[in-house]
Amino acid sequence: MSDSFPGETVGSVIAGDAVTGWQDALERQSLARAKAGLTRTLRPRAAGDAVVDLAGNDYLGLAVHPEVVEAAVGALRAYGLGATGSRLVRGSTEAHAALETDLAEWLGFPRALVYSSGFLANLGAIRALAGPGTLLISDRYNHASLIDGCKSSGAEVVVAPHADPAALAALLAAHPGREVVYVTESVFSVDGDLAPLADLHAVTSAHGALMLVDDAHALGVLGPEGAGGVAAAGLSGAPDVVVTATLSKALGGAGGVIAGPEPLARHLIDTGRTFIYDTAPPPSVVAGVGAALRLARRADDRRALLTTRADATVRRLHAAGFTTPAPAAAVLSVPAPGPEAALAWAADCRDRGVAVGCFRPPSTPDGSSRLRLTLNAGIAAEDFERALDVIAECAP
Amino acid sequence: MSDSFPGETVGSVIAGDAVTGWQDALERQSLARAKAGLTRTLRPRAAGDAVVDLAGNDYLGLAVHPEVVEAAVGALRAYGLGATGSRLVRGSTEAHAALETDLAEWLGFPRALVYSSGFLANLGAIRALAGPGTLLISDRYNHASLIDGCKSSGAEVVVAPHADPAALAALLAAHPGREVVYVTESVFSVDGDLAPLADLHAVTSAHGALMLVDDAHALGVLGPEGAGGVAAAGLSGAPDVVVTATLSKALGGAGGVIAGPEPLARHLIDTGRTFIYDTAPPPSVVAGVGAALRLARRADDRRALLTTRADATVRRLHAAGFTTPAPAAAVLSVPAPGPEAALAWAADCRDRGVAVGCFRPPSTPDGSSRLRLTLNAGIAAEDFERALDVIAECAP
Ligand SMILES: Cc1ncc(COP(=O)(O)O)c(C=O)c1O
Ligand SMILES: Cc1ncc(COP(=O)(O)O)c(C=O)c1O
Repeated sequence: MSDSFPGETVGSVIAGDAVTGWQDALERQSLARAKAGLTRTLRPRAAGDAVVDLAGNDYLGLAVHPEVVEAAVGALRAYGLGATGSRLVRGSTEAHAALETDLAEWLGFPRALVYSSGFLANLGAIRALAGPGTLLISDRYNHASLIDGCKSSGAEVVVAPHADPAALAALLAAHPGREVVYVTESVFSVDGDLAPLADLHAVTSAHGALMLVDDAHALGVLGPEGAGGVAAAGLSGAPDVVVTATLSKALGGAGGVIAGPEPLARHLIDTGRTFIYDTAPPPSVVAGVGAALRLARRADDRRALLTTRADATVRRLHAAGFTTPAPAAAVLSVPAPGPEAALAWAADCRDRGVAVGCFRPPSTPDGSSRLRLTLNAGIAAEDFERALDVIAECAP
Repeated sequence: MSDSFPGETVGSVIAGDAVTGWQDALERQSLARAKAGLTRTLRPRAAGDAVVDLAGNDYLGLAVHPEVVEAAVGALRAYGLGATGSRLVRGSTEAHAALETDLAEWLGFPRALVYSSGFLANLGAIRALAGPGTLLISDRYNHASLIDGCKSSGAEVVVAPHADPAALAALLAAHPGREVVYVTESVFSVDGDLAPLADLHAVTSAHGALMLVDDAHALGVLGPEGAGGVAAAGLSGAPDVVVTATLSKALGGAGGVIAGPEPLARHLIDTGRTFIYDTAPPPSVVAGVGAALRLARRADDRRALLTTRADATVRRLHAAGFTTPAPAAAVLSVPAPGPEAALAWAADCRDRGVAVGCFRPPSTPDGSSRLRLTLNAGIAAEDFERALDVIAECAP
């Protein structure tokens, strides 16, 4: 996920005759992006819009579940809106403590700590595990928050071939005696494929390396009781594995989590900058996520529906001539001929009331363009069928 | 705000015979922190606990205001819990757009963008303004999120003497021809003092440098209609000023904001990694903050009460023999004889039902220890009086 763009870098023209020179420079970069078809537009949606959503990450449909909403309403009335401080000042409520207990039990690790976002959880986890002497090996398709965490850690970073245990073994063999942390997602955010976590872990543990897994897109979807990709791989509670995740996808809320052994939690509480120097997530959000977690554990029916819908989507796209691979969880990647075609496809779907994701450079790790479809078990069957029709009919 | 601790760094013992060697290392560091009195403890609070809160950041008491709570409840029922995606996917709702319009108008800048935290807003703002060639000049007492933003920007960073226009001018003169961004808070988070923003801006603009101001602790408290420290200094909308803030303090919610000119907003939407790759803040939180913003604009009565309470607190502490300076806004710093004395003072207050902040190394920029008191206009007068009694009676 490169962040370079045609045109100047921002820093290059701040100084100048006018105090507005920097704005002119940003303006020129904006024009260059527009020419390259890389402009992005915010499209605020109304409450209860009739759009069929195959773009969001509410995989289990829990964001709108009445028990989730009412748990949040209850906490709002009990605590007020904000947590009013960081976790170590006034920001820890009984709702935070309860969610951390439930997350730890669900994920199968001794401790779990809640963050205000998955982004800050990833920054915090990498910083905690990597010192200046550490070698961070980071999967080539990792999420921006993991990449930024690696970059800002001050440790040496090596980018590894995607989801490849043999390549990982070769990299470890090439750096004997180094302290290594291998950083990967479970289900990857762009292509929806699953890393071979058990095989990767066999490699890291044979070398005495740690493995950090961002389980964002598998939590709630894979594993026993939806406990995630790490659980599905039999790695829950492994002493050399640390798990992060966002609470904003299958759990329908917001926030992040780091799960691992007790000493890691103590280390994060005492020294973790993105834990200590950030306001705690709102009690209402935490309580709503707690309700979603309880629902997610017994949501085998919704998980089965996701599998059915994944099969139906892949069959439909194959029939329309697209080579979309079978998804590991609820994220499907559909190759498009190019950025303009992808954009037009997504726009046509939107015009017909179906939201789909559209990933173009620089948001795609390999420079290709694609539609990104995400499945949601909460969508009514007829809406889902109609959405597949629309996607096929709008195909380039 | 140093993050170094006695004992080994984490990375130094991951490799070893056992996959649990890293846990032993973290454990040893934890023991070393315990010996140095630097262990921190999470204390979850119950809803409606009877504690008088002089530690949180809900300066105007809006976190529990019925209009704020009911605005959030309404959005919860309308939208569900989470935003279900990043701002560019499904995460932008009409609530987000409305809050951004209102923030821009209030702060007096052409555009405002909402983030899921002030921490990520700061990382995003600094990354947007600083390229590899930029010189970042950062006030010595800046918040951890600003420090980490500077460090991770890849730009050269110089730490400036605290709130000192002459020293800033000298630093700028020592780096002629450089593109410079000066980074400062308005009201500082630890000591509660106010940077001389107008004088600092006179220096930066004379040198063609940009100024980034984190207005976290002044928003809602200083300036016309509580528009913050930048507004109070007459700098709203200045073409060479960018403002960030958290929505978690006087606005009683959670999230962050970057306000500045139109080209900056477009740049952040198209390229800002902490904007693009992070789930949008929940609609309910955004709607609650929107209600708080409307209340904050007309809360001159609450702001006057904060001033009265600040005077009363300073008088009381002076009478008890403490040299606490008059606060610029709602944060007071009370020097304590040492970390143990500060800790005992805060613990005694807590035992008597009064929450106060306790800042010790490494969370204090100068290595000293202190109580940190934050004022809240929503606390009943008799509770506030009792809290001052308790603080004075527990003083070392
Ligand atoms: C793999 C992955 N990790 C981390 C994040 C960041 O989590 P959050 O949105 O809670 O910041 C995301 C997406 O948002 C993601 O897809
Ligand atoms: C000065 C300052 N900036 C930024 C932040 C971070 O904001 P947030 O808590 O929303 O991440 C804080 C405190 O939380 C702060 O005090």
